Amino acid sequence: MAEFSMNTTETVDFDLIHRILLEASQKAQDVTLKYFRKTIDIENKLQKGFDPVTAADKEAELAIRAVITEYFPDHNISGEEWEDKETNSPFRWIIDPIDGTRAFICGLPVWGTLIALTYEGKSVAGLMSQPHIGEDFIGLPQKSLLNRQGLEIQLKTSTITELSAANIFTTSPRIFLLDKSLAAYDALEDKVKLARYGLDCYAYAMVALGHGELVVEEGLKSVDIAAMIPIIEQAGGIVTTWSGKQATEGGQVIAAANKHIHEAALDILSPAATD
Amino acid sequence: MAEFSMNTTETVDFDLIHRILLEASQKAQDVTLKYFRKTIDIENKLQKGFDPVTAADKEAELAIRAVITEYFPDHNISGEEWEDKETNSPFRWIIDPIDGTRAFICGLPVWGTLIALTYEGKSVAGLMSQPHIGEDFIGLPQKSLLNRQGLEIQLKTSTITELSAANIFTTSPRIFLLDKSLAAYDALEDKVKLARYGLDCYAYAMVALGHGELVVEEGLKSVDIAAMIPIIEQAGGIVTTWSGKQATEGGQVIAAANKHIHEAALDILSPAATD
Repeated sequence: MAEFSMNTTETVDFDLIHRILLEASQKAQDVTLKYFRKTIDIENKLQKGFDPVTAADKEAELAIRAVITEYFPDHNISGEEWEDKETNSPFRWIIDPIDGTRAFICGLPVWGTLIALTYEGKSVAGLMSQPHIGEDFIGLPQKSLLNRQGLEIQLKTSTITELSAANIFTTSPRIFLLDKSLAAYDALEDKVKLARYGLDCYAYAMVALGHGELVVEEGLKSVDIAAMIPIIEQAGGIVTTWSGKQATEGGQVIAAANKHIHEAALDILSPAATD
Repeated sequence: MAEFSMNTTETVDFDLIHRILLEASQKAQDVTLKYFRKTIDIENKLQKGFDPVTAADKEAELAIRAVITEYFPDHNISGEEWEDKETNSPFRWIIDPIDGTRAFICGLPVWGTLIALTYEGKSVAGLMSQPHIGEDFIGLPQKSLLNRQGLEIQLKTSTITELSAANIFTTSPRIFLLDKSLAAYDALEDKVKLARYGLDCYAYAMVALGHGELVVEEGLKSVDIAAMIPIIEQAGGIVTTWSGKQATEGGQVIAAANKHIHEAALDILSPAATD
Protein backbone atom coordinates (compact mmCIF):
# COMPACT_ATOMS: atom_id res chain seq x y z
CA MET A 1 0.00 0.00 0.00
CA ALA A 2 1.50 3.34 -1.06
CA GLU A 3 0.86 5.81 1.70
CA PHE A 4 1.53 9.49 1.54
CA SER A 5 1.54 11.56 4.68
CA MET A 6 -0.28 14.83 4.05
CA ASN A 7 0.47 16.19 7.51
CA THR A 8 0.63 14.80 11.01
CA THR A 9 -3.03 13.92 11.13
CA GLU A 10 -3.85 12.75 7.60
CA THR A 11 -2.67 9.82 5.51
CA VAL A 12 -3.98 8.85 2.12
CA ASP A 13 -3.90 5.44 0.50
CA PHE A 14 -2.96 6.43 -3.04
CA ASP A 15 -3.38 2.89 -4.34
CA LEU A 16 -7.02 3.28 -3.37
CA ILE A 17 -7.15 6.73 -4.98
CA HIS A 18 -5.70 5.18 -8.15
CA ARG A 19 -8.43 2.52 -8.20
CA ILE A 20 -11.14 5.11 -7.52
CA LEU A 21 -9.91 7.29 -10.40
CA LEU A 22 -10.01 4.33 -12.80
CA GLU A 23 -13.44 3.20 -11.58
CA ALA A 24 -14.84 6.72 -11.92
CA SER A 25 -13.26 7.01 -15.37
CA GLN A 26 -14.98 3.78 -16.47
CA LYS A 27 -18.39 4.93 -15.17
CA ALA A 28 -17.96 8.29 -16.91
CA GLN A 29 -16.96 6.56 -20.15
CA ASP A 30 -20.13 4.45 -20.09
CA VAL A 31 -22.03 7.74 -20.27
CA THR A 32 -19.85 9.84 -22.56
CA LEU A 33 -19.40 7.19 -25.28
CA LYS A 34 -23.18 6.66 -25.31
CA TYR A 35 -23.46 10.28 -26.49
CA PHE A 36 -20.21 10.87 -28.42
CA ARG A 37 -20.80 11.25 -32.18
CA LYS A 38 -24.52 10.84 -31.67
CA THR A 39 -27.06 13.58 -32.21
CA ILE A 40 -27.30 15.42 -28.91
CA ASP A 41 -29.43 18.22 -27.61
CA ILE A 42 -27.17 21.12 -26.94
CA GLU A 43 -28.40 23.56 -24.37
CA ASN A 44 -27.08 27.04 -24.42
CA LYS A 45 -25.90 27.98 -20.94
CA LEU A 46 -25.32 31.59 -21.82
CA GLN A 47 -27.77 33.90 -23.49
CA LYS A 48 -24.85 35.56 -25.24
CA GLY A 49 -22.02 33.47 -26.73
CA PHE A 50 -21.98 29.73 -27.04
CA ASP A 51 -21.26 27.53 -24.04
CA PRO A 52 -22.64 24.10 -24.82
CA VAL A 53 -23.76 21.76 -22.12
CA THR A 54 -24.92 18.35 -22.97
CA ALA A 55 -26.72 15.57 -21.21
CA ALA A 56 -23.42 13.71 -21.43
CA ASP A 57 -21.70 16.31 -19.22
CA LYS A 58 -24.41 16.22 -16.59
CA GLU A 59 -24.85 12.44 -16.44
CA ALA A 60 -21.11 11.72 -16.48
CA GLU A 61 -20.50 14.05 -13.55
CA LEU A 62 -23.23 12.31 -11.55
CA ALA A 63 -21.63 8.94 -12.30
CA ILE A 64 -18.23 10.20 -11.08
CA ARG A 65 -19.74 11.79 -7.95
CA ALA A 66 -21.44 8.49 -7.08
CA VAL A 67 -18.12 6.60 -7.13
CA ILE A 68 -16.35 9.22 -5.00
CA THR A 69 -19.19 9.44 -2.50
CA GLU A 70 -19.25 5.68 -2.09
CA TYR A 71 -15.61 5.66 -0.92
CA PHE A 72 -15.36 9.10 0.71
CA PRO A 73 -18.78 10.34 1.80
CA ASP A 74 -17.19 13.17 3.82
CA HIS A 75 -15.04 14.73 1.04
CA ASN A 76 -15.87 18.01 -0.70
CA ILE A 77 -16.81 17.77 -4.38
CA SER A 78 -16.77 20.55 -6.99
CA GLY A 79 -17.92 19.91 -10.54
CA GLU A 80 -18.57 21.80 -13.73
CA GLU A 81 -22.25 20.93 -13.94
CA TRP A 82 -23.72 20.48 -10.45
CA GLU A 83 -23.63 22.37 -7.14
CA ASP A 84 -20.60 22.02 -4.91
CA LYS A 85 -20.80 19.58 -2.02
CA GLU A 86 -19.27 21.36 0.99
CA THR A 87 -17.92 19.51 4.04
CA ASN A 88 -15.24 20.16 6.68
CA SER A 89 -12.74 17.78 5.05
CA PRO A 90 -9.38 19.11 3.81
CA PHE A 91 -9.97 16.98 0.69
CA ARG A 92 -11.87 18.19 -2.36
CA TRP A 93 -12.54 16.35 -5.62
CA ILE A 94 -12.72 18.58 -8.68
CA ILE A 95 -14.52 17.21 -11.73
CA ASP A 96 -14.88 18.30 -15.34
CA PRO A 97 -16.91 15.50 -16.92
CA ILE A 98 -16.11 16.68 -20.45
CA ASP A 99 -13.27 19.16 -20.80
CA GLY A 100 -13.46 20.27 -24.41
CA THR A 101 -17.23 20.10 -24.89
CA ARG A 102 -16.80 21.86 -28.22
CA ALA A 103 -14.40 19.17 -29.43
CA PHE A 104 -16.91 16.59 -28.16
CA ILE A 105 -19.74 18.21 -30.14
CA CYS A 106 -17.54 18.27 -33.27
CA GLY A 107 -16.78 14.54 -32.97
CA LEU A 108 -13.08 15.22 -32.26
CA PRO A 109 -11.21 12.81 -29.97
CA VAL A 110 -9.29 15.51 -28.05
CA TRP A 111 -11.72 16.11 -25.19
CA GLY A 112 -11.23 14.45 -21.82
CA THR A 113 -12.85 13.56 -18.53
CA LEU A 114 -10.93 15.25 -15.70
CA ILE A 115 -10.94 14.22 -12.05
CA ALA A 116 -8.64 15.80 -9.46
CA LEU A 117 -8.15 15.26 -5.74
CA THR A 118 -6.91 18.30 -3.84
CA TYR A 119 -5.69 18.51 -0.24
CA GLU A 120 -5.94 21.93 1.36
CA GLY A 121 -6.23 23.49 -2.08
CA LYS A 122 -3.27 21.68 -3.69
CA SER A 123 -3.75 19.04 -6.40
CA VAL A 124 -2.33 15.71 -5.20
CA ALA A 125 -3.88 13.27 -7.71
CA GLY A 126 -5.46 13.56 -11.13
CA LEU A 127 -6.86 11.61 -14.05
CA MET A 128 -7.55 12.60 -17.66
CA SER A 129 -9.46 10.03 -19.67
CA GLN A 130 -10.02 10.04 -23.46
CA PRO A 131 -12.29 7.03 -23.88
CA HIS A 132 -12.83 7.13 -27.66
CA ILE A 133 -9.11 6.52 -28.07
CA GLY A 134 -8.96 4.43 -24.89
CA GLU A 135 -6.41 6.44 -22.94
CA ASP A 136 -6.20 7.20 -19.21
CA PHE A 137 -3.49 9.64 -18.08
CA ILE A 138 -2.94 9.40 -14.31
CA GLY A 139 -0.84 11.43 -11.89
CA LEU A 140 -0.28 10.36 -8.27
CA PRO A 141 2.58 10.99 -5.83
CA GLN A 142 5.72 9.49 -7.43
CA LYS A 143 3.61 8.08 -10.28
CA SER A 144 2.58 9.36 -13.71
CA LEU A 145 1.17 6.88 -16.22
CA LEU A 146 -0.67 6.49 -19.50
CA ASN A 147 -2.93 3.43 -19.49
CA ARG A 148 -3.70 2.23 -23.01
CA GLN A 149 -4.84 -1.15 -24.25
CA GLY A 150 -3.88 -2.80 -20.96
CA LEU A 151 -0.38 -1.28 -20.98
CA GLU A 152 1.02 1.17 -18.43
CA ILE A 153 3.32 3.66 -20.17
CA GLN A 154 5.53 5.80 -17.93
CA LEU A 155 5.00 9.52 -18.59
CA LYS A 156 8.10 11.68 -18.85
CA THR A 157 8.28 15.29 -19.98
CA SER A 158 10.60 16.50 -22.72
CA THR A 159 14.24 17.34 -22.00
CA ILE A 160 14.27 20.13 -24.59
CA THR A 161 15.44 23.30 -22.82
CA GLU A 162 15.44 25.92 -25.63
CA LEU A 163 12.31 27.76 -26.73
CA SER A 164 13.55 27.61 -30.32
CA ALA A 165 13.17 23.80 -30.24
CA ALA A 166 9.86 23.76 -28.35
CA ASN A 167 6.27 22.92 -29.33
CA ILE A 168 3.57 25.15 -27.84
CA PHE A 169 -0.14 24.42 -27.51
CA THR A 170 -3.11 26.65 -26.81
CA THR A 171 -6.83 26.28 -27.42
CA SER A 172 -6.89 29.30 -29.71
CA PRO A 173 -5.18 32.69 -29.93
CA ARG A 174 -8.71 34.02 -29.49
CA ILE A 175 -8.85 32.91 -25.83
CA PHE A 176 -6.51 35.77 -24.86
CA LEU A 177 -8.97 38.52 -24.08
CA LEU A 178 -6.59 41.24 -22.92
CA ASP A 179 -4.38 42.95 -25.51
CA LYS A 180 -1.32 42.48 -23.29
CA SER A 181 -2.07 38.77 -22.80
CA LEU A 182 -2.37 38.19 -26.53
CA ALA A 183 0.77 40.21 -27.20
CA ALA A 184 2.69 38.16 -24.61
CA TYR A 185 1.40 34.88 -26.08
CA ASP A 186 2.25 36.01 -29.62
CA ALA A 187 5.76 37.03 -28.53
CA LEU A 188 6.24 33.58 -27.03
CA GLU A 189 4.79 31.75 -30.06
CA ASP A 190 7.20 33.70 -32.27
CA LYS A 191 10.12 32.19 -30.35
CA VAL A 192 9.09 28.51 -30.47
CA LYS A 193 9.42 25.93 -33.23
CA LEU A 194 5.82 24.92 -33.70
CA ALA A 195 2.36 25.86 -32.41
CA ARG A 196 -0.81 23.78 -32.34
CA TYR A 197 -4.32 25.00 -31.51
CA GLY A 198 -7.60 23.40 -30.56
CA LEU A 199 -6.72 20.99 -27.79
CA ASP A 200 -8.01 21.73 -24.27
CA CYS A 201 -6.83 19.06 -21.79
CA TYR A 202 -5.20 16.92 -24.47
CA ALA A 203 -2.46 19.53 -24.84
CA TYR A 204 -1.44 19.09 -21.20
CA ALA A 205 -1.42 15.30 -21.66
CA MET A 206 1.02 15.68 -24.57
CA VAL A 207 3.37 17.74 -22.38
CA ALA A 208 3.26 14.96 -19.76
CA LEU A 209 3.97 12.43 -22.53
CA GLY A 210 7.01 14.41 -23.69
CA HIS A 211 5.66 15.53 -27.10
CA GLY A 212 5.23 19.20 -26.38
CA GLU A 213 7.06 21.64 -24.14
CA LEU A 214 4.45 24.30 -23.38
CA VAL A 215 0.75 24.95 -22.91
CA VAL A 216 -0.19 28.59 -22.39
CA GLU A 217 -3.78 29.62 -21.73
CA GLU A 218 -5.92 32.27 -20.08
CA GLY A 219 -9.30 32.25 -18.39
CA LEU A 220 -9.09 28.68 -17.11
CA LYS A 221 -11.28 27.45 -14.30
CA SER A 222 -10.11 25.16 -11.54
CA VAL A 223 -11.94 22.21 -13.14
CA ASP A 224 -9.94 22.76 -16.36
CA ILE A 225 -6.51 22.41 -14.77
CA ALA A 226 -6.57 20.78 -11.31
CA ALA A 227 -6.40 17.20 -12.67
CA MET A 228 -3.58 17.94 -15.10
CA ILE A 229 -1.23 19.37 -12.46
CA PRO A 230 -0.21 16.09 -10.75
CA ILE A 231 0.00 14.34 -14.14
CA ILE A 232 2.48 16.90 -15.47
CA GLU A 233 4.36 17.46 -12.20
CA GLN A 234 4.95 13.76 -11.58
CA ALA A 235 6.14 13.41 -15.19
CA GLY A 236 8.78 16.08 -14.52
CA GLY A 237 6.99 19.25 -15.64
CA ILE A 238 5.85 22.46 -13.98
CA VAL A 239 2.39 24.07 -13.91
CA THR A 240 1.92 27.59 -12.55
CA THR A 241 0.14 30.84 -13.26
CA TRP A 242 1.93 33.40 -15.46
CA SER A 243 3.35 34.96 -12.32
CA GLY A 244 4.73 31.62 -11.15
CA LYS A 245 2.11 30.90 -8.48
CA GLN A 246 0.13 27.71 -7.84
CA ALA A 247 -2.35 27.18 -10.69
CA THR A 248 -4.98 24.96 -9.05
CA GLU A 249 -7.49 27.80 -9.18
CA GLY A 250 -6.94 28.38 -12.93
CA GLY A 251 -6.69 31.83 -14.51
CA GLN A 252 -3.62 32.44 -16.69
CA VAL A 253 -1.89 29.07 -16.78
CA ILE A 254 1.44 27.84 -18.11
CA ALA A 255 2.47 24.18 -18.21
CA ALA A 256 6.12 23.57 -19.07
CA ALA A 257 8.17 20.44 -19.68
CA ASN A 258 10.98 21.50 -17.34
CA LYS A 259 12.30 24.44 -15.35
CA HIS A 260 14.40 25.84 -18.22
CA ILE A 261 11.42 26.11 -20.56
CA HIS A 262 9.27 27.39 -17.69
CA GLU A 263 11.71 30.18 -16.85
CA ALA A 264 12.25 31.20 -20.46
CA ALA A 265 8.49 31.38 -21.08
CA LEU A 266 7.74 33.23 -17.84
CA ASP A 267 10.28 35.89 -18.82
CA ILE A 268 7.95 36.69 -21.71
CA LEU A 269 4.58 36.06 -20.04
CA SER A 270 5.01 37.44 -16.52
CA PRO A 271 4.79 41.13 -17.52
CA ALA A 272 1.25 40.33 -18.70
CA ALA A 273 0.31 38.42 -15.53
CA THR A 274 -2.89 39.56 -13.87
CA ASP A 275 -2.55 37.69 -10.56
CA MET B 1 -18.43 -7.14 -58.11
CA ALA B 2 -19.21 -3.42 -58.16
CA GLU B 3 -18.16 -2.03 -61.49
CA PHE B 4 -18.13 1.59 -62.44
CA SER B 5 -17.82 2.64 -66.03
CA MET B 6 -15.41 5.53 -66.34
CA ASN B 7 -15.97 5.90 -70.07
CA THR B 8 -16.48 3.59 -73.02
CA THR B 9 -13.04 2.00 -72.71
CA GLU B 10 -12.39 1.84 -68.97
CA THR B 11 -14.07 -0.03 -66.15
CA VAL B 12 -12.92 -0.20 -62.57
CA ASP B 13 -13.63 -2.90 -60.03
CA PHE B 14 -14.26 -0.73 -56.96
CA ASP B 15 -14.51 -3.74 -54.67
CA LEU B 16 -10.90 -4.39 -55.61
CA ILE B 17 -10.02 -0.71 -55.08
CA HIS B 18 -11.67 -0.94 -51.65
CA ARG B 19 -9.53 -3.95 -50.72
CA ILE B 20 -6.37 -2.27 -52.05
CA LEU B 21 -7.07 0.86 -49.99
CA LEU B 22 -7.48 -1.20 -46.82
CA GLU B 23 -4.39 -3.30 -47.54
CA ALA B 24 -2.29 -0.20 -48.21
CA SER B 25 -3.69 1.42 -45.04
CA GLN B 26 -2.63 -1.61 -42.99
CA LYS B 27 0.90 -1.60 -44.46
CA ALA B 28 1.23 2.14 -43.82
CA GLN B 29 -0.01 1.69 -40.25
CA ASP B 30 2.67 -0.92 -39.58
CA VAL B 31 5.20 1.82 -40.33
CA THR B 32 3.55 4.89 -38.82
CA LEU B 33 2.67 3.33 -35.47
CA LYS B 34 6.24 2.08 -35.15
CA TYR B 35 7.29 5.76 -35.09
CA PHE B 36 4.29 7.53 -33.53
CA ARG B 37 5.03 8.88 -30.04
CA LYS B 38 8.60 7.62 -30.28
CA THR B 39 11.67 9.82 -30.48
CA ILE B 40 12.17 10.49 -34.17
CA ASP B 41 14.75 12.28 -36.19
CA ILE B 42 13.11 15.23 -37.77
CA GLU B 43 14.73 16.51 -40.91
CA ASN B 44 14.12 20.05 -41.92
CA LYS B 45 13.04 20.14 -45.55
CA LEU B 46 13.22 23.88 -45.85
CA GLN B 47 16.15 26.06 -44.85
CA LYS B 48 13.67 28.71 -43.76
CA GLY B 49 10.56 27.79 -41.76
CA PHE B 50 9.75 24.38 -40.41
CA ASP B 51 8.50 21.55 -42.64
CA PRO B 52 9.19 18.32 -40.83
CA VAL B 53 9.68 15.10 -42.68
CA THR B 54 10.20 11.94 -40.81
CA ALA B 55 11.37 8.48 -41.60
CA ALA B 56 7.78 7.46 -40.93
CA ASP B 57 6.56 9.57 -43.87
CA LYS B 58 9.09 8.15 -46.28
CA GLU B 59 8.78 4.49 -45.30
CA ALA B 60 4.98 4.59 -45.14
CA GLU B 61 4.78 6.02 -48.66
CA LEU B 62 7.02 3.25 -49.97
CA ALA B 63 4.81 0.63 -48.29
CA ILE B 64 1.69 2.13 -49.95
CA ARG B 65 3.39 2.38 -53.36
CA ALA B 66 4.36 -1.31 -53.14
CA VAL B 67 0.74 -2.38 -52.63
CA ILE B 68 -0.54 -0.21 -55.50
CA THR B 69 2.21 -1.32 -57.87
CA GLU B 70 1.51 -4.97 -57.13
CA TYR B 71 -2.09 -4.62 -58.37
CA PHE B 72 -1.69 -1.83 -60.94
CA PRO B 73 1.87 -1.68 -62.26
CA ASP B 74 0.81 0.69 -65.07
CA HIS B 75 -0.90 3.39 -62.95
CA ASN B 76 0.65 6.79 -62.26
CA ILE B 77 1.62 7.48 -58.65
CA SER B 78 2.20 10.87 -56.97
CA GLY B 79 3.31 11.10 -53.37
CA GLU B 80 4.42 13.68 -50.86
CA GLU B 81 7.88 12.19 -50.28
CA TRP B 82 9.10 10.44 -53.45
CA GLU B 83 9.30 11.24 -57.13
CA ASP B 84 6.19 10.86 -59.27
CA LYS B 85 5.79 7.67 -61.28
CA GLU B 86 4.58 8.76 -64.73
CA THR B 87 2.79 6.40 -67.15
CA ASN B 88 0.22 6.72 -69.93
CA SER B 89 -2.63 5.50 -67.76
CA PRO B 90 -5.64 7.78 -67.08
CA PHE B 91 -5.38 6.59 -63.45
CA ARG B 92 -3.21 8.25 -60.85
CA TRP B 93 -2.81 7.36 -57.17
CA ILE B 94 -2.10 10.33 -54.89
CA ILE B 95 -0.51 9.60 -51.52
CA ASP B 96 0.16 11.62 -48.38
CA PRO B 97 1.64 9.08 -45.98
CA ILE B 98 1.19 11.40 -42.98
CA ASP B 99 -1.09 14.37 -43.48
CA GLY B 100 -0.55 16.48 -40.38
CA THR B 101 3.11 15.70 -39.75
CA ARG B 102 3.16 18.42 -37.12
CA ALA B 103 0.29 16.77 -35.23
CA PHE B 104 2.18 13.47 -35.58
CA ILE B 105 5.32 15.02 -34.08
CA CYS B 106 3.30 16.44 -31.21
CA GLY B 107 1.79 13.02 -30.41
CA LEU B 108 -1.71 14.18 -31.41
CA PRO B 109 -4.09 11.62 -32.93
CA VAL B 110 -5.50 13.94 -35.62
CA TRP B 111 -3.08 13.14 -38.45
CA GLY B 112 -3.99 10.69 -41.18
CA THR B 113 -2.68 8.56 -44.00
CA LEU B 114 -4.31 9.70 -47.27
CA ILE B 115 -4.61 7.63 -50.44
CA ALA B 116 -6.63 8.78 -53.46
CA LEU B 117 -7.33 7.26 -56.86
CA THR B 118 -7.99 9.78 -59.62
CA TYR B 119 -9.26 9.15 -63.14
CA GLU B 120 -8.38 11.81 -65.69
CA GLY B 121 -7.68 14.23 -62.85
CA LYS B 122 -10.89 13.62 -60.90
CA SER B 123 -10.87 11.87 -57.50
CA VAL B 124 -12.95 8.69 -57.69
CA ALA B 125 -11.85 6.84 -54.53
CA GLY B 126 -10.15 7.82 -51.30
CA LEU B 127 -9.07 6.61 -47.89
CA MET B 128 -8.09 8.46 -44.73
CA SER B 129 -6.68 6.29 -41.97
CA GLN B 130 -6.02 7.32 -38.34
CA PRO B 131 -4.36 4.19 -36.97
CA HIS B 132 -3.70 5.30 -33.37
CA ILE B 133 -7.47 5.60 -32.92
CA GLY B 134 -8.13 2.74 -35.33
CA GLU B 135 -10.28 4.53 -37.88
CA ASP B 136 -10.44 4.16 -41.68
CA PHE B 137 -12.65 6.64 -43.55
CA ILE B 138 -13.34 5.40 -47.09
CA GLY B 139 -15.08 6.97 -50.09
CA LEU B 140 -15.93 5.02 -53.25
CA PRO B 141 -18.67 5.46 -55.85
CA GLN B 142 -21.99 5.17 -53.97
CA LYS B 143 -20.14 4.27 -50.76
CA SER B 144 -18.77 6.28 -47.83
CA LEU B 145 -17.81 4.43 -44.66
CA LEU B 146 -16.00 4.68 -41.37
CA ASN B 147 -14.39 1.38 -40.39
CA ARG B 148 -13.76 1.17 -36.65
CA GLN B 149 -13.29 -1.86 -34.43
CA GLY B 150 -14.64 -4.18 -37.11
CA LEU B 151 -17.78 -2.08 -37.65
CA GLU B 152 -18.73 -0.25 -40.85
CA ILE B 153 -20.45 3.03 -40.00
CA GLN B 154 -22.26 4.83 -42.84
CA LEU B 155 -20.98 8.38 -43.31
CA LYS B 156 -23.57 11.11 -43.81
CA THR B 157 -22.99 14.84 -43.81
CA SER B 158 -24.94 17.25 -41.63
CA THR B 159 -28.36 18.55 -42.69
CA ILE B 160 -27.76 21.93 -41.04
CA THR B 161 -28.32 24.59 -43.70
CA GLU B 162 -27.73 27.87 -41.81
CA LEU B 163 -24.25 29.29 -41.21
CA SER B 164 -25.40 30.48 -37.78
CA ALA B 165 -25.78 26.83 -36.70
CA ALA B 166 -22.60 25.56 -38.40
CA ASN B 167 -19.23 24.36 -37.08
CA ILE B 168 -16.20 25.46 -39.10
CA PHE B 169 -12.71 23.93 -39.08
CA THR B 170 -9.38 25.21 -40.31
CA THR B 171 -5.79 24.30 -39.51
CA SER B 172 -5.04 27.78 -38.23
CA PRO B 173 -6.05 31.37 -39.07
CA ARG B 174 -2.34 31.79 -39.80
CA ILE B 175 -2.54 29.62 -42.96
CA PHE B 176 -4.27 32.47 -44.79
CA LEU B 177 -1.34 34.33 -46.29
CA LEU B 178 -3.17 36.99 -48.25
CA ASP B 179 -4.91 39.78 -46.37
CA LYS B 180 -8.04 39.28 -48.44
CA SER B 181 -8.08 35.54 -47.77
CA LEU B 182 -7.79 36.04 -44.01
CA ALA B 183 -10.43 38.76 -44.10
CA ALA B 184 -12.81 36.46 -46.00
CA TYR B 185 -12.16 33.59 -43.59
CA ASP B 186 -12.66 35.86 -40.58
CA ALA B 187 -15.91 37.19 -42.03
CA LEU B 188 -17.13 33.62 -42.46
CA GLU B 189 -16.00 32.52 -38.98
CA ASP B 190 -17.89 35.47 -37.51
CA LYS B 191 -21.11 34.07 -39.00
CA VAL B 192 -20.85 30.48 -37.75
CA LYS B 193 -21.61 28.97 -34.37
CA LEU B 194 -18.25 27.45 -33.51
CA ALA B 195 -14.71 27.25 -34.92
CA ARG B 196 -12.02 24.64 -34.25
CA TYR B 197 -8.37 24.84 -35.28
CA GLY B 198 -5.48 22.39 -35.61
CA LEU B 199 -6.93 19.50 -37.58
CA ASP B 200 -5.61 18.88 -41.12
CA CYS B 201 -7.39 15.87 -42.72
CA TYR B 202 -9.31 15.00 -39.57
CA ALA B 203 -11.47 18.11 -40.10
CA TYR B 204 -12.68 16.78 -43.46
CA ALA B 205 -13.44 13.40 -41.88
CA MET B 206 -15.66 15.12 -39.30
CA VAL B 207 -17.62 16.86 -42.09
CA ALA B 208 -18.15 13.45 -43.74
CA LEU B 209 -19.27 12.06 -40.37
CA GLY B 210 -21.80 14.88 -39.96
CA HIS B 211 -20.17 16.67 -36.99
CA GLY B 212 -19.02 19.79 -38.77
CA GLU B 213 -20.42 21.77 -41.69
CA LEU B 214 -17.34 23.51 -43.14
CA VAL B 215 -13.60 23.22 -43.66
CA VAL B 216 -11.96 26.28 -45.20
CA GLU B 217 -8.26 26.32 -46.04
CA GLU B 218 -5.69 27.89 -48.33
CA GLY B 219 -2.42 26.68 -49.83
CA LEU B 220 -3.39 23.00 -49.99
CA LYS B 221 -1.57 20.59 -52.25
CA SER B 222 -3.26 17.84 -54.22
CA VAL B 223 -2.00 15.21 -51.75
CA ASP B 224 -3.77 17.07 -48.91
CA ILE B 225 -7.24 16.98 -50.42
CA ALA B 226 -7.61 14.40 -53.24
CA ALA B 227 -8.43 11.50 -50.87
CA MET B 228 -10.98 13.48 -48.87
CA ILE B 229 -13.09 14.50 -51.89
CA PRO B 230 -14.77 11.12 -52.57
CA ILE B 231 -15.24 10.53 -48.82
CA ILE B 232 -17.12 13.83 -48.40
CA GLU B 233 -18.95 13.76 -51.75
CA GLN B 234 -20.27 10.23 -51.23
CA ALA B 235 -21.40 11.23 -47.73
CA GLY B 236 -23.50 14.04 -49.26
CA GLY B 237 -21.09 16.96 -49.10
CA ILE B 238 -19.36 19.26 -51.59
CA VAL B 239 -15.66 20.04 -52.01
CA THR B 240 -14.53 22.84 -54.35
CA THR B 241 -12.12 25.73 -54.59
CA TRP B 242 -13.30 29.11 -53.29
CA SER B 243 -14.47 29.92 -56.82
CA GLY B 244 -16.53 26.73 -56.97
CA LYS B 245 -14.20 24.74 -59.23
CA GLN B 246 -12.91 21.19 -58.84
CA ALA B 247 -10.50 21.04 -55.89
CA THR B 248 -8.42 17.96 -56.70
CA GLU B 249 -5.38 20.15 -57.33
CA GLY B 250 -5.70 21.91 -53.95
CA GLY B 251 -5.21 25.65 -53.48
CA GLN B 252 -8.02 27.48 -51.69
CA VAL B 253 -10.39 24.71 -50.65
CA ILE B 254 -13.85 24.62 -49.11
CA ALA B 255 -15.58 21.45 -47.96
CA ALA B 256 -19.25 21.86 -47.08
CA ALA B 257 -21.85 19.52 -45.63
CA ASN B 258 -24.47 20.39 -48.26
CA LYS B 259 -25.24 22.80 -51.08
CA HIS B 260 -26.94 25.37 -48.82
CA ILE B 261 -23.90 25.73 -46.56
CA HIS B 262 -21.62 25.65 -49.62
CA GLU B 263 -23.48 28.48 -51.34
CA ALA B 264 -23.70 30.61 -48.20
CA ALA B 265 -19.97 30.21 -47.54
CA LEU B 266 -18.96 30.84 -51.17
CA ASP B 267 -20.90 34.11 -51.11
CA ILE B 268 -18.34 35.27 -48.51
CA LEU B 269 -15.22 33.50 -49.82
CA SER B 270 -15.47 33.82 -53.59
CA PRO B 271 -14.50 37.53 -53.74
CA ALA B 272 -11.15 36.42 -52.27
CA ALA B 273 -10.72 33.52 -54.70
CA THR B 274 -7.39 33.45 -56.53
CA ASP B 275 -8.23 30.76 -59.15
